[in-house]
Amino acid sequence: MRQSQLFTKTRREAPADEVSKNAILLTRAGFINKEMAGVYDFLPLGLRTLNKIISIIREEMNALGGQEILMSSLQRKELWERTDRWDDKKVDNWFKTKLKEGGELGLGFTHEEPISNMLEQFISSYKDLPFSVYQFQNKFRNEVRAKSGIMRTREFIMKDLYSFNTDQEAHQNFYEKAKESYRKIFNRVGIGDITYLTEASGGTFSARSHEFQTLTEAGEDTIFITNEDKKEAVNKEIDNREEDGLKAVEVGNIFTLGTKFSDPYLKFKDEDGKDQHVFMGSYGIGPARLMGTIVETLSDEKGIVWPKEVAPFQVHLVVVTGDSKARAEEIYERLIAENIEVLYDDRDLRAGEKLKDADLIGIPTQIIVGDKTEKGFLEPRSWFVEVKDRTSGDSRVVSIDDFIKSFK
Amino acid sequence: MRQSQLFTKTRREAPADEVSKNAILLTRAGFINKEMAGVYDFLPLGLRTLNKIISIIREEMNALGGQEILMSSLQRKELWERTDRWDDKKVDNWFKTKLKEGGELGLGFTHEEPISNMLEQFISSYKDLPFSVYQFQNKFRNEVRAKSGIMRTREFIMKDLYSFNTDQEAHQNFYEKAKESYRKIFNRVGIGDITYLTEASGGTFSARSHEFQTLTEAGEDTIFITNEDKKEAVNKEIDNREEDGLKAVEVGNIFTLGTKFSDPYLKFKDEDGKDQHVFMGSYGIGPARLMGTIVETLSDEKGIVWPKEVAPFQVHLVVVTGDSKARAEEIYERLIAENIEVLYDDRDLRAGEKLKDADLIGIPTQIIVGDKTEKGFLEPRSWFVEVKDRTSGDSRVVSIDDFIKSFK
Repeated sequence: MRQSQLFTKTRREAPADEVSKNAILLTRAGFINKEMAGVYDFLPLGLRTLNKIISIIREEMNALGGQEILMSSLQRKELWERTDRWDDKKVDNWFKTKLKEGGELGLGFTHEEPISNMLEQFISSYKDLPFSVYQFQNKFRNEVRAKSGIMRTREFIMKDLYSFNTDQEAHQNFYEKAKESYRKIFNRVGIGDITYLTEASGGTFSARSHEFQTLTEAGEDTIFITNEDKKEAVNKEIDNREEDGLKAVEVGNIFTLGTKFSDPYLKFKDEDGKDQHVFMGSYGIGPARLMGTIVETLSDEKGIVWPKEVAPFQVHLVVVTGDSKARAEEIYERLIAENIEVLYDDRDLRAGEKLKDADLIGIPTQIIVGDKTEKGFLEPRSWFVEVKDRTSGDSRVVSIDDFIKSFK
Repeated sequence: MRQSQLFTKTRREAPADEVSKNAILLTRAGFINKEMAGVYDFLPLGLRTLNKIISIIREEMNALGGQEILMSSLQRKELWERTDRWDDKKVDNWFKTKLKEGGELGLGFTHEEPISNMLEQFISSYKDLPFSVYQFQNKFRNEVRAKSGIMRTREFIMKDLYSFNTDQEAHQNFYEKAKESYRKIFNRVGIGDITYLTEASGGTFSARSHEFQTLTEAGEDTIFITNEDKKEAVNKEIDNREEDGLKAVEVGNIFTLGTKFSDPYLKFKDEDGKDQHVFMGSYGIGPARLMGTIVETLSDEKGIVWPKEVAPFQVHLVVVTGDSKARAEEIYERLIAENIEVLYDDRDLRAGEKLKDADLIGIPTQIIVGDKTEKGFLEPRSWFVEVKDRTSGDSRVVSIDDFIKSFK
C-alpha cells in the first residue's frame, strides 16, 4: 500500500481529552478515531491490526474444536429475566432500547442466555455433547468509567466461546485445554512473558474464575504473583495481602459456569435415558483490549512497536531522497511480488518527518532507501538497502535479495 | 468438516411463525436461528456462506480502490441533528438508547454523518481527494414489517462505501465504476442474470438513486424492465405505468449525495487556495439480504441450491452404506489434502435421510459413496465415486482422480 493513498494521517498532537497512552499513540499514528468517550472507529491501519489479532484467536479457537457462529446484539427481555440478569439493579451496564411496535430490548453485554436458549433445539442426547461454539461479536456495556482508550469501551468486538459438557470432569478437561489455547494467543500477540493466569472472583457469572492479567501501569486491577515460572498470580479482590501488588489489566477470562445458565433451558438424556444437567463454561477475550494492551506495554518514547504477528504491515519501505524514488518503486514491486505486506512511504516529505512517522506507526521492519545505500550495485537484484529493526533500533545494510531470503 | 460434529441439525418442519421461503429453508437446513421477528443468528453453515459473500464484496470494493474501516454503532445525537436526521418524525426507524451518565445515543442505521465528521481532520486540500472508504458494519433499523426472513431485519451487517470527490464530474466517473463493481458482485454470487440496474427515488438520501433489483416474488418493490439486454429497469415509485410490473427485491443501492451530508463538516482548498465543497456518494449492499435473495430465487422443491462461490462447502461427501465407511474416510482425507472444502456426512443414518439432507443443505457438488461404486477398482487413487450435480440432479460415476482433476 502506498502511504500517499492511505486514508490516515499521523498527528503531531494528541487529542486534548485523551489521557490514556494507547488512545494517544493510536490516534496520533492514525489507527483509530474517537466517536465519543469509550467509543472508537478503526481506520485502515487499526483495522488491519485488529483483524490480525482476531485471526490468531480464531486459529486457536478452531484448534480447540470450537465452531464459529454469529449471534445478534438485540436481546429479548424474557430470556434475561429467567436468569435474573435483566434488572438494572442486578446488571448495572445494560444499554436498553425499544421496539417501534412496543416492548423493551437489551443490547447484549454477553451471550450465555441466548446461546443456552438456542441450544434447546440442538441438544437432547448425550450423543450431542460435548461441543463448543464461539463468535466475534459486538458487545455493548454502559460503562461510566471510559478513560482507558480502547481497553475499556462501551462497544467492542468480543470473542466469546461457550463449552457444553456432560459433567464436571469432562468440563474440567476442556477448561484446561482452553487455558493452553489462551497462553498460545498471548504468546503469539507478543505479551506472553508479562501475562499471568490469575485466580479471581467470578462476578455475575460464577463464584470463582480465572483471568489472564498483563502487567501494566494502565491496568485497573492489582495482582500478586504466586509462581513466576508458571506465570501464575492471584487477584487482590479475592486475596488482599499486606504486600505491594502489581498493576495489571485483564486481557482474558475463563469461567466454570456449571449449570447456572443452562438449567433454565437445557437437559440431555444419558445412556440410560435419564435427564441430566448440561455443564457449561464461558471464555472471553476482547481483541481491541489486547491491541490497547500491546500498545501500553511495548511502545517506547518514539511511538508504537508492533510484534511481528499483529503489525498492520510486515515491512515499512521509506524512500528518503528524491533521487532514489525510481529505485524504491522497483523495490516496492519486488516485495509485493514476494507476497510481503508492505507499506510504502512514497510521500513528498522531508526524510526526518518520514522516519519519525515510521517510528510512530511501529511496523517492526523498516527498509530505508536513500543516498547511504546508493553504492556498489550493478543490477536490481543486488541493490543494497538499509534495514532497521524498530524494536532495537539496530540497522544494517544488505542486498534486497539477502533481505528477502532472511525475511522468509 | 465431519457432519456428525457440525453444530447444526436439519429440521423436518419449519418454525410455525415463519412465512418467508428463505427463513423456512435456511432454518430447516440449519443455517440460521431466529432470536425474534427480524433478528437472526448465523450458525456455522450460515456464517460460512455469509462470509463468502462478504469476501466477494470485499474483493470488488478493494479493486475499486476502497479502503476498509470499521465505525461504531453507537452514535452521538448532535451529529444527526446537524443534518436534521435525528428526529423520529424525519427518520422513522431509529433505535435509540441512553448513557448511564445521561444523554441519548442512536444506533446507526447508516453512516453518512459520522464519516463526514471524522473526515474533517483528514481532508483539507485537493491533494487529499479523491478517496473512498467502506466497512462491513452492523446497522440497526427499527422495522415494523419484519416478515421477510433475513431479507429485511432489524439488525444486519451492511457494506457501506462512501466516496469523496472534488466535483460532480470526478464523482460521476467513480459512480460508473461502482456500478460495474456491483454488477460483478451480483454475477459472482449467481444472480446476475435476474438483477437489474433500476432508476429509483433517493429516499432521505438524495432526489434520485440507482438500485439493483433482483426479480423474485418475495420482493416488496415493483419494477418495469426498460432494457433487457442491458439489464436496466425503473422503479414503479418514480414511474407508475399502466402495464403490469415485476416483483423485485432491492439487493444494492448507490446514491449521488452531492454536498448535502459533507457541507456541514467538509471543505477543501483547491489549487488556487479557494474553499470548495466535497462531492459525496454512498453505496450499500446487505450481505444477508443477498444470501436470502439467493435462497428465494435459486432453491427448488428439495431445498437450497447454492452457487459455487457462496456455498458453505465446495463438496458434500455422503457415505450411504456402512461397508463403504473406510473408503469414504480415505476419500475425505484425500479431498482435504487437495484443499477442497468438504462437508463429510459420516452420521449413522439411513441413506435416504442423508441424501435428503444433502439436497436440503444445497452444496453444489455431492460425492456419494456406496455399493453402486464398489466395483472395478484396484487401488485408492482410482476408486470410483458417484458425483451428483445439485442444480441439474445429473450424476456420473468417475474415478476420484478424475474428479479432482476436473474440479480444479
